[in-house]
Amino acid sequence: MSRASAISAYLHRSRRGFSPIVYFRHRRHASFFSTDVEYPLTHPIYTVWAANTSLGKTLVSAGLSISFLSGVSGRKFIYLKPVQTGFPQDSDSRFVYRKFSEFVSLHRPESSVEASDHVLRASALASQELLGKNCGGGIVNLGWHEKKLLGSGQKSGISELVCKTLYAWKEALSPHVVAEKEGARIEDAEFLEKLKSCLGASSETFVHECGENAEMMCVIETAGGVASPSPSGSLQCDLYRPFRLPAILVGDGKLGGISATISAYETLKLRGYDVVAVVLEDHSLLNEAPLLSYLQGRIPVLVLPPIPQEISNDLMEWFYQSQDVFDRLQKIMCLSSRARIEQLHYMTKKAHEIFWWPFTQHKLISKDHVMMIDSRCGENFAVHSVNNSIKNTDSIIQRFDACASWWTQGPDASLQIELARDMGYATSRYGHVMFPENVHEPALKCAELLLEGVGKGWASRVYFSDNGSTAIEIALKMALRKFLFDHGFLFESPNGNDVDKYINLKVLALRGSYHGDTLGAMEAQAPSPYTGFYQQPWYKGRGHFLDPPKVSLCQDVWKLFIPKKIQPNIANEEDLIFSSRDEIFQKERDVSGIADVYSSYISQELLENLDPRGYISIGALIIEPVIQGAGGMEMIDPLFQRILTRECHRRKIPVIFDEVFTGFWRLGAESAAELLSCQPDIACFAKLMTGGVVPLAATLASKELKALLHGHSYTAHALGCTAAVKSIKWFKDCKTNSNLTHGGRLLKEMWDENLVRHISLLPAVDRVVALGTLCAIELRVEGSNAGYASLCASNLLHKLRGDGIYMRPLGNVVYLMCGPCTSPDVCRTVLEKVFRRLEEVSQAKIV
Amino acid sequence: MSRASAISAYLHRSRRGFSPIVYFRHRRHASFFSTDVEYPLTHPIYTVWAANTSLGKTLVSAGLSISFLSGVSGRKFIYLKPVQTGFPQDSDSRFVYRKFSEFVSLHRPESSVEASDHVLRASALASQELLGKNCGGGIVNLGWHEKKLLGSGQKSGISELVCKTLYAWKEALSPHVVAEKEGARIEDAEFLEKLKSCLGASSETFVHECGENAEMMCVIETAGGVASPSPSGSLQCDLYRPFRLPAILVGDGKLGGISATISAYETLKLRGYDVVAVVLEDHSLLNEAPLLSYLQGRIPVLVLPPIPQEISNDLMEWFYQSQDVFDRLQKIMCLSSRARIEQLHYMTKKAHEIFWWPFTQHKLISKDHVMMIDSRCGENFAVHSVNNSIKNTDSIIQRFDACASWWTQGPDASLQIELARDMGYATSRYGHVMFPENVHEPALKCAELLLEGVGKGWASRVYFSDNGSTAIEIALKMALRKFLFDHGFLFESPNGNDVDKYINLKVLALRGSYHGDTLGAMEAQAPSPYTGFYQQPWYKGRGHFLDPPKVSLCQDVWKLFIPKKIQPNIANEEDLIFSSRDEIFQKERDVSGIADVYSSYISQELLENLDPRGYISIGALIIEPVIQGAGGMEMIDPLFQRILTRECHRRKIPVIFDEVFTGFWRLGAESAAELLSCQPDIACFAKLMTGGVVPLAATLASKELKALLHGHSYTAHALGCTAAVKSIKWFKDCKTNSNLTHGGRLLKEMWDENLVRHISLLPAVDRVVALGTLCAIELRVEGSNAGYASLCASNLLHKLRGDGIYMRPLGNVVYLMCGPCTSPDVCRTVLEKVFRRLEEVSQAKIV
Repeated sequence: MSRASAISAYLHRSRRGFSPIVYFRHRRHASFFSTDVEYPLTHPIYTVWAANTSLGKTLVSAGLSISFLSGVSGRKFIYLKPVQTGFPQDSDSRFVYRKFSEFVSLHRPESSVEASDHVLRASALASQELLGKNCGGGIVNLGWHEKKLLGSGQKSGISELVCKTLYAWKEALSPHVVAEKEGARIEDAEFLEKLKSCLGASSETFVHECGENAEMMCVIETAGGVASPSPSGSLQCDLYRPFRLPAILVGDGKLGGISATISAYETLKLRGYDVVAVVLEDHSLLNEAPLLSYLQGRIPVLVLPPIPQEISNDLMEWFYQSQDVFDRLQKIMCLSSRARIEQLHYMTKKAHEIFWWPFTQHKLISKDHVMMIDSRCGENFAVHSVNNSIKNTDSIIQRFDACASWWTQGPDASLQIELARDMGYATSRYGHVMFPENVHEPALKCAELLLEGVGKGWASRVYFSDNGSTAIEIALKMALRKFLFDHGFLFESPNGNDVDKYINLKVLALRGSYHGDTLGAMEAQAPSPYTGFYQQPWYKGRGHFLDPPKVSLCQDVWKLFIPKKIQPNIANEEDLIFSSRDEIFQKERDVSGIADVYSSYISQELLENLDPRGYISIGALIIEPVIQGAGGMEMIDPLFQRILTRECHRRKIPVIFDEVFTGFWRLGAESAAELLSCQPDIACFAKLMTGGVVPLAATLASKELKALLHGHSYTAHALGCTAAVKSIKWFKDCKTNSNLTHGGRLLKEMWDENLVRHISLLPAVDRVVALGTLCAIELRVEGSNAGYASLCASNLLHKLRGDGIYMRPLGNVVYLMCGPCTSPDVCRTVLEKVFRRLEEVSQAKIV
Repeated sequence: MSRASAISAYLHRSRRGFSPIVYFRHRRHASFFSTDVEYPLTHPIYTVWAANTSLGKTLVSAGLSISFLSGVSGRKFIYLKPVQTGFPQDSDSRFVYRKFSEFVSLHRPESSVEASDHVLRASALASQELLGKNCGGGIVNLGWHEKKLLGSGQKSGISELVCKTLYAWKEALSPHVVAEKEGARIEDAEFLEKLKSCLGASSETFVHECGENAEMMCVIETAGGVASPSPSGSLQCDLYRPFRLPAILVGDGKLGGISATISAYETLKLRGYDVVAVVLEDHSLLNEAPLLSYLQGRIPVLVLPPIPQEISNDLMEWFYQSQDVFDRLQKIMCLSSRARIEQLHYMTKKAHEIFWWPFTQHKLISKDHVMMIDSRCGENFAVHSVNNSIKNTDSIIQRFDACASWWTQGPDASLQIELARDMGYATSRYGHVMFPENVHEPALKCAELLLEGVGKGWASRVYFSDNGSTAIEIALKMALRKFLFDHGFLFESPNGNDVDKYINLKVLALRGSYHGDTLGAMEAQAPSPYTGFYQQPWYKGRGHFLDPPKVSLCQDVWKLFIPKKIQPNIANEEDLIFSSRDEIFQKERDVSGIADVYSSYISQELLENLDPRGYISIGALIIEPVIQGAGGMEMIDPLFQRILTRECHRRKIPVIFDEVFTGFWRLGAESAAELLSCQPDIACFAKLMTGGVVPLAATLASKELKALLHGHSYTAHALGCTAAVKSIKWFKDCKTNSNLTHGGRLLKEMWDENLVRHISLLPAVDRVVALGTLCAIELRVEGSNAGYASLCASNLLHKLRGDGIYMRPLGNVVYLMCGPCTSPDVCRTVLEKVFRRLEEVSQAKIV
């Protein structure tokens, strides 16, 4: 390890040596989140990418416009050039506009097309160049355009070519350089907003003017190569990612072009794009042959005739020769686009027929309720939406994943890309390799990070498995065995099920806690509808289950709710109210009266669990520290859990913390144990551990005890460990997570405190718990009508889906969950929408 | 779906249109397998890659040679140019040799260096050009070289520069074109073999001549860009992958170069390479700034002064100016290489301290036995090896993964790369998205493929989970519930644990079967050391366990072994012997005498399981079809399992096939149910389903029954489903899997039948089962000394590790497992080694 730091120190030194080496600046995509991505599926929209600069993206775009508009009437072709440098000398949209016009005049005089070229915004310098007058500074809202009517001029069945430059800069340099130089930077969010309005607006007007059956196509031409920087400095392939539009890749037909084209293709795939076709110029090198072989024939490779290089050549002849290729390309694009929509509809229907979803009463789910998720980018889903009231209104819309996909999610868009590259790398380097008695780098690094992080100060070994349930099964096996050993039940005799020493072991657990759905994990849970005879007839409930004291924010006050059994022992009513959430966690409470009450209550309960011979028969304590998730997002009094842990430790009863839900910043600290200020003997982690891309679990233990005969084939699989290594580091590094405070120990308040207080005051709301990435809201139940409350929750969530927020209820509890790196601004926006809907419900209630 | 085929049809048609489009030819990397990759870690060995052609790879190599050798004595620098086209006009190794010589003569006359340039092999045309005489055809073994002594000429402390061209062709075109054109193709395996010998040989001679402390560096310069085709047509980045040498990337400093460099970097990462530094020429565009930002400062980006373009320039001035950069680059390479070795040692030691391995008695494992897996490529591990007898002999060696990493592995090297790209894509497109009531493309496609494949003819719904154990827990819940429903125990009453209707349900299972390590899965297994009180005190064994009849090849005869309980009923001894393995599976046996014996035995056993009220209390049958894996690779008489299934169906007892191990071609058919010729109600799949990269499981059911309250957070995760879609298709497509026969229904015999027969005849061998990808061998136990046999197995496997085969024993059973696409030639090579070792053991026995 010291070597690694030696290198790093060396690099650090050496970077200072030779001149033009610039230090790393972390790219933040936080701005993505504030853009609601949305675009219509009523017509093909494609992005044209290239393997390098100057490979003919603009020629391809122009060729497509000619192919799409010529010979048919009533169509519209939109060409967008979002980023143009070297303007106005260079203008790709003007080029398309002019070449199209020339071609139509020459070869298609019978058509009738209105063609226009627009420049929406430009740097002041570029604007000045265009308009010949001083335009101030920064970005100028130009709104400049020119247009003409081509062909016969007949008004009926007229087609339209609209070319638009969205942003232009004067110098012919890379966008990130020129934007800086001309003092006309543009942030990604603003850029995407503009692009979105261009995509949406044009389709709406067109459908409005020309009717629903009119045909339209849109092409967006990127600048430079696939990974060329955008004006903000982010890579273009990252910038456009939230839209994830289907792609055309203009390849390189020159020497070296095979490699360049394949690499560019891989860069696009690595960002989740679907490439529909590759087009390249013929340089007589037959580059298309190895490309087709690489693509295994799954994607067509089209070859354009050599492009004349003389400046005097007007290209009319070339466009004419290329028409066949462009016709095919255009047809592929249209067919593929239509196929995509049909596939979206098909999948929704088919899913209903062949999936058996967990926790789902299939008869109650109509096909229309099935959500088709096209992709995710950071915290947001892109979802297929069908507006049934208007024909042909398929679209892709965005929904904030407020249930963090069953509490697994953590990545923002930047981390997602990093993880994508890492998953590709890990698959290629390892795939999966056998674990017992072996070691591989990701597993070791992951174990080290776990022991230095969530296991710090107590854990010494890591046992890997696949998910929360298996991590718990392992923890229980470890704990019960440790108990047997510590209490003298374990002998060295290998075959020894010594009858005298047999003991019927139970666990101590809290009512409402959840630890997984495999039988062993279920046994540690109190009976509930989930454990019923008809779900798992083998379930017994091998636990002594306590009702825990709970805390929550009610009507702007943090209150403690004591279970009936110990209520009579509470002397001081003031102990039941807190001035702040922080007070609840204070260690000073350890010496309060209520601590004594807890302590004697627990001792009493433990005393009730002696086996006939007088042995204690509680083999382990298992708790979800601080918040019981699936049980309804209940916050348990941390003091109670701390005392439970202490009392069990005192009696040598192993303590298991189930941090599957609470671990890795879910509650605002890396582990919930830190919030509790006490340590377990065994703890389980999963979900957020991999940043939310693949299943992986770890059971940490303070000490190993002999061979544990439990294993899963993918134990410590390289992809999971690699993802965990990246995510664990990412979340706790202030360079990548700007939400860290308190020297990196805690997250900022993610949920606006004022807003949370206001929510707790609403008549429709019973209680609120906001902690870390979680904000849970329990809706008020009238009388004992929990079913009705649950219905209310469903209605509420249905409305919120319309607002772009995807939530799932837990009975009458609704909750929002973000990632450890999500911007609090985004949380506020989301929470405001929830607040507004809750206000509506409250008003309805009052009425 | 019809749209998709419409497109495909269209593409097909249109491809025939425009001329130079070549059809897909599947790249086979099968040749990789026959190369035993191995290289020393005694000195840095690097591959130099570039983002495109003509970016200065050779200049960088020459600069490194100067930096490494000048000013110090007794060092050796090896420059390898494996692929040279345009030879002898162009020769990069001659260039390095000459520029180095010029530089030393000019600037370091005080040094003493022997420099040489070698050309090992060349096409006949290129050879003719070099030697001026007709050289025949094909590839010529040239062995040409020139050398000189530079500097002071002192013999003591002399340094050495060795430049080698491995293969050369005459025309200056892409290697795949020129190799074809000059009739001098070279296959990947041969190429890698040559490269390996160059890497190994040079280090051995050097250490031999100059002692162990002498320093050496080796640089391999690739041709063209990272993904440029190799002489065989495979991509270079794929060709060199088995070595996975650390990489230097020569980036592009020109306009568009940021994108090209990032894409090339991603192509390398996507193949599991570690890039140690990026170097690029300064074109005053500051390309290094966005590159560093992209790389987040983790990898240094070094900038070389502009390269003079005039042909007359001898570059001496440039090399002089660049020395600082090359010194830093060289130092980074040396430090990083040393750090890698230290890290390898560190990890082995640390793993022993902090991992808790499954099924491992830690006290029995010495640190020296821990295997450090550096990577996997197809079926092979690359492993860190230390030869303790000689100092400084760390190396990377190859081991065939004969236990298929706990039976999960299927990919050959080609599929692994495909999966890597897919995993990157799926992470970027989805990460993970919530499943219940939702749909995403990979989950739907995966479910469709399962229902059309392993579930064909009986399954209608797919329930996803994470691993074999959870798939079994789900299957048991489904089955027991179906039983309760079918037998009238299930009421609509939601709270109804109706006491009258309570029944203590068991499963019917076979002794020695294994279904997983979670409690529910354990309960379906017969008691064994794995289920002991000290492993899981809650285990009861909720099954009625039958001893099954077994078959195996003993002394060249397939024999049936009948359990004691039914032995007396066997009338005909001839029923116990088969003429071939195929006969065992024949449906004709259904009407044999033994079928009746089975049938009445099973009926009898079922009758023993009535509850006091007369209800049958067997709620499900669960079996591993055909082979019981973890129980010792026992082949169960398929007739017995078929009749079991029939008898249970007859009584409405749901039948579960646990195909976690047997599914997806493991036994030579897509599902083992096909071999059994009968169908279950429920079946579980995992392991090979994803091709062996990430955990994913599926429980298929013939019919769904209400909501199942069982779920895991990563249910139907996109990475797993994507991998499954690719792998399921890959294995059953004869374009990608050349092992398919019988119209794609079965795999070829993977294990040479003759060899298998010979093994069964060895005195040390008790029985053999070779079926599909599995070849299991049970060692003979003398008397009842199973412990001794187990020790024999360990010794045997230890020796086989030395032979490059990684196996793990199951008691006294040793086994080999390949992938569904592994070449039978590879299987033969491996099996031959095993045969030879077994012969040794047998001879020792006889003595």
